[in-house]
Amino acid sequence: MKNIHLAVVAGCFCAAMLLNGCCTTGKCNAAKVERYGMVIGLKAEKLDEYKKLHAAVWPDVLKMIADCHIRNYSIYLFHARENRYFLFSYFEYTGDNFKADMDKMAADPTTQRWWALCKPCQEPVRLRQADEWWANMEEVFHCE
Amino acid sequence: MKNIHLAVVAGCFCAAMLLNGCCTTGKCNAAKVERYGMVIGLKAEKLDEYKKLHAAVWPDVLKMIADCHIRNYSIYLFHARENRYFLFSYFEYTGDNFKADMDKMAADPTTQRWWALCKPCQEPVRLRQADEWWANMEEVFHCE
Repeated sequence: MKNIHLAVVAGCFCAAMLLNGCCTTGKCNAAKVERYGMVIGLKAEKLDEYKKLHAAVWPDVLKMIADCHIRNYSIYLFHARENRYFLFSYFEYTGDNFKADMDKMAADPTTQRWWALCKPCQEPVRLRQADEWWANMEEVFHCE
Repeated sequence: MKNIHLAVVAGCFCAAMLLNGCCTTGKCNAAKVERYGMVIGLKAEKLDEYKKLHAAVWPDVLKMIADCHIRNYSIYLFHARENRYFLFSYFEYTGDNFKADMDKMAADPTTQRWWALCKPCQEPVRLRQADEWWANMEEVFHCE
């Protein structure tokens, strides 16, 4: 009987490890996820600078993003017409209080130094809310 | 010994079920994922029609999207200025041959009927590749 119990325990441990290993990606828990799509203009003369910055984002900026429960964060470049560029961002928020996490990020001195480099490259879009830098977009479709 | 083997098999079955249960979300396997960001114009006079269509996408269209290894697919609406709208899409591709899967989707009669409703709402952007409807955008940043 002892051996059988051992085997069962080993089996369940194996199951737990597999499950845990799977969920370390942070993508398979049942927690709610809020998706965000945002847009901002990018100054044509700052295109190269912005791309270079984002090819090597500071590790502490990335850590703050993760600490603020943001994951699967992508930024795309839209070349609308000559000298007119936009940035589209998509990310997923897994925390419980988006505003509080964004306030935490905004209060981080490293993030502030990072934004001091990025913001001069950007140009907010016309039709945004008064308190927005990046403008939130409406989600018109989603499938899992 | 037979019972021990049974327990080990049961344990591993349990592990497999848990792992499989986790991975039915399609978000936690280790397979490579290709991310896509695309953009297209939306005719202002077709805004409501497009939103209504996408609030109730036909089940067989959604099934074909999944069959073609596309997941986590979102479309956002960007109101650039008066009477000027763009759609920004983000999705993840988990298959091995994107072109083959897109050809499969394009050959599907239901999808063709769906596109016959959607395409008149859309207006491809100026600076796209010759063979594009939705224009692919360059990813300038990503973090997990």
